[in-house]
Amino acid sequence: MRIQELAKEHALLESCAEVLSWDEETYLPANALAHRADQVAWLHSRAHELVTSAEWEDALNEALENDSNKNSRDVQNLRLLERELRRAKCLPIELINRESVACSKGKHAWAKAREKSHFPDFLPHLEVLLDIAREKAELWGYSGEAYDALLENYERNTSTAQIVACFAALEPAVIEISTAAIQHGKMRTTLLPAGPYPVAAQMELNARVAAAVGFDFDSGRIDTTAHPFCTTLGPRDIRITTRYDENDFTSSLFGVLHEAGHGLYEQGLPVDDFGLPSGKAVSLGIHESQSRLWENHVGRSRAFWHVWYPKAQEIFPQLKSFPLEDFMHYLWRAEHSQIRVEADEATYDLHIFLRVDLERRLLAGNLTARDLPEAWNAGYTARFGFAPEDDRHGCLQDIHWAMGGIGYFATYTLGNMHAAQLFAAAMKDASIANEFATGNFSPLLDWLRNAVHRHGGLIDPWDLITSATGVAPNSSPYIHHLRNRYLGS
Amino acid sequence: MRIQELAKEHALLESCAEVLSWDEETYLPANALAHRADQVAWLHSRAHELVTSAEWEDALNEALENDSNKNSRDVQNLRLLERELRRAKCLPIELINRESVACSKGKHAWAKAREKSHFPDFLPHLEVLLDIAREKAELWGYSGEAYDALLENYERNTSTAQIVACFAALEPAVIEISTAAIQHGKMRTTLLPAGPYPVAAQMELNARVAAAVGFDFDSGRIDTTAHPFCTTLGPRDIRITTRYDENDFTSSLFGVLHEAGHGLYEQGLPVDDFGLPSGKAVSLGIHESQSRLWENHVGRSRAFWHVWYPKAQEIFPQLKSFPLEDFMHYLWRAEHSQIRVEADEATYDLHIFLRVDLERRLLAGNLTARDLPEAWNAGYTARFGFAPEDDRHGCLQDIHWAMGGIGYFATYTLGNMHAAQLFAAAMKDASIANEFATGNFSPLLDWLRNAVHRHGGLIDPWDLITSATGVAPNSSPYIHHLRNRYLGS
Repeated sequence: MRIQELAKEHALLESCAEVLSWDEETYLPANALAHRADQVAWLHSRAHELVTSAEWEDALNEALENDSNKNSRDVQNLRLLERELRRAKCLPIELINRESVACSKGKHAWAKAREKSHFPDFLPHLEVLLDIAREKAELWGYSGEAYDALLENYERNTSTAQIVACFAALEPAVIEISTAAIQHGKMRTTLLPAGPYPVAAQMELNARVAAAVGFDFDSGRIDTTAHPFCTTLGPRDIRITTRYDENDFTSSLFGVLHEAGHGLYEQGLPVDDFGLPSGKAVSLGIHESQSRLWENHVGRSRAFWHVWYPKAQEIFPQLKSFPLEDFMHYLWRAEHSQIRVEADEATYDLHIFLRVDLERRLLAGNLTARDLPEAWNAGYTARFGFAPEDDRHGCLQDIHWAMGGIGYFATYTLGNMHAAQLFAAAMKDASIANEFATGNFSPLLDWLRNAVHRHGGLIDPWDLITSATGVAPNSSPYIHHLRNRYLGS
Repeated sequence: MRIQELAKEHALLESCAEVLSWDEETYLPANALAHRADQVAWLHSRAHELVTSAEWEDALNEALENDSNKNSRDVQNLRLLERELRRAKCLPIELINRESVACSKGKHAWAKAREKSHFPDFLPHLEVLLDIAREKAELWGYSGEAYDALLENYERNTSTAQIVACFAALEPAVIEISTAAIQHGKMRTTLLPAGPYPVAAQMELNARVAAAVGFDFDSGRIDTTAHPFCTTLGPRDIRITTRYDENDFTSSLFGVLHEAGHGLYEQGLPVDDFGLPSGKAVSLGIHESQSRLWENHVGRSRAFWHVWYPKAQEIFPQLKSFPLEDFMHYLWRAEHSQIRVEADEATYDLHIFLRVDLERRLLAGNLTARDLPEAWNAGYTARFGFAPEDDRHGCLQDIHWAMGGIGYFATYTLGNMHAAQLFAAAMKDASIANEFATGNFSPLLDWLRNAVHRHGGLIDPWDLITSATGVAPNSSPYIHHLRNRYLGS
């Protein structure tokens, strides 16, 4: 089918841009940034031309008209491509260009405003970005609230109401568990033995760990960047990155486990469908469920460290006098942080509840952008018991809104919820659980490959979790996990 | 001008392909090769479409019609673009596609034939490639011999007769000097102290050396590959590579100096003209002159090691008991090798004379492809005094013919000649020579920037050497250099 060829050509083009973006984050010389921006812009622009071309639409329509001849997988792919096209066609090109300029200016202004911790410098940009988000939501349409239309960008066929119901059950539990965990931690402070933990040795341990959980280095790599990420440069080219702290080897290691979780999902997608919906990850929430599962449910488990702590002790001799029990205590420490990306497992979701609440109110017009710092500080204080020291540590800390990503934050807590639900479902299989207890995680990976990865984007995220676990997405398994880990019951 | 914009877009596209090719050589995971080939092919194909489009030709013609309004630099660029287009239009698309397939199959067959040292497996491909080369030469036209038309790909406005005249004067001198140098070396064998020379320490030394000769790491990098190269990913993004031998640190260091010589040329081209003829290197011979100048005239000089040998001795303690005089003797050793890329300075050109002679005869039909191994061995024996052990070490060693690069080999010896001529001309300036003697090479780089780099592709290579040195290209300075270095007179 011509439309399949075009979709694959589109993916090929975008994958070229990904190579250039990866290089920009890893190895680009300082003076080369401007040319690199031109290169990436050219590629994205050609990719955009392709999906909005008459040729694309004609090829899709032609395939749809003849879809009775096709197998059901082809038909599903066609329906999903049609859905994407319909959604793309809702937005006039003028709006897309306006948004692209606003995001570019917004990111620039945000970076400077954050540096100076001066919200008014970012305010006019945020106002423009919110107006554009509302305009897009109206053009796309929604049945509940405007937030639904934006959430759709990240979580297909998932409603704000569904998410809000889960979060409403989760939030009081997280507050209760994290408060108790912090209280508990104050009674027993554990510090990791002093560094240095040499970077070369960390790299060696990380690579062994990544390989042990199933990350395929013949189809991927680990490099070093300021902000860890996972990116797909081709169907057999999945690259993850981490950063190193010579005082704490667990920082790079959990970065690798998190990104390897993303990477295992990408490496488990159907290779031959690269570029088609069936060859793509279905949603950010599902993606995050994979990274959080490997980071927290595997990487912070006793079973994991029962195997890996002796190896870490060999590599880092200062750990030899630090018992495993103390190390686990260090991994499970809980404390209130102002910065989301530094938050531990016990308190992380509080940061998300705050942001989702604020962005829904901003979008609905119940909160004006001007009042964001005040509302942030109030919402933060209600959840954490103290106010951020300034806007830099408050409403200016994240890039997401500045790049137009309203609706994105919800996917982080969805990921946490889904991870716990998937992990609990897998552990019901005694053979998976028994192997897990011995530090063999490959039956778990096989289960995820079968339940999640192989479906690519063919099953809506909510349905995917339901079909994988037998129960609709809900917060109970995650609450159970947090309670178990932090309160030991 | 529209044509300038198109030329810059073409360069942008090709520079995207260069990023992907660089990554392929440095960091690509094993399984990702097939997708990478698709990505690069897509980009080259779009680039080719652009330069052969009606839009390109129209834009060029429009600019040419109005060229009285333009400054002379613009006019020169237009004339050069017109020349390229005229040359491109000589070849039908059918031939270009046929050549592309033949090169791809040729490279594949060559690699397997070389591995087995079995020329007959490569023969049919070589025959096809030679037919295509002859066909192209006829379509382009030539006044002297067919080789002229192919040489034009690498050395604009340079005739085979000009090159052959230089080589005829050079060859007996090289034979005389290398024979004496080898004889001399047999009387005094010097071996570098035993390794290991740790790779990390080599990297540190190489980076310091590259920076000291002027390579700008804010606009470039050094990475590791099986075969060293230099590539331009953007006007401020010049990347060089090297490979490491733990038994001999000079291998990677001279690799870096050679590639840094290419890199300095690229970093010295007019940045704002990236994509225009005035922003490009003018020829392979001129490019090679820069690499050989920094590798051999700077890097193998006493002045260089007077400064850098003490630093090398600090980094590699085993050198402390190895006097500088012995080290220089090691650097200037001469011996007959079967493999071109392993040849020393004294014998390198013999490999080139052999190849240029053979490819001219193949092209003219005075030698059939079937008889190549025999002719190779005869020509090799005449120059080296013994025959290669097999075709793997003989006519199958180089990839150039297999990828359609007939006429390419001549540029290596042209580079050696030009390097000596440029270096000698620069050294006539006492202030450059005095600084050079103290190990300060930046006046030399300034001279090259002014005499060569800043002109980009605006001056034909033969004229560029003439204008830079006051004399037409000739082999005397190179013979003088070799005699001086190897026979000490």
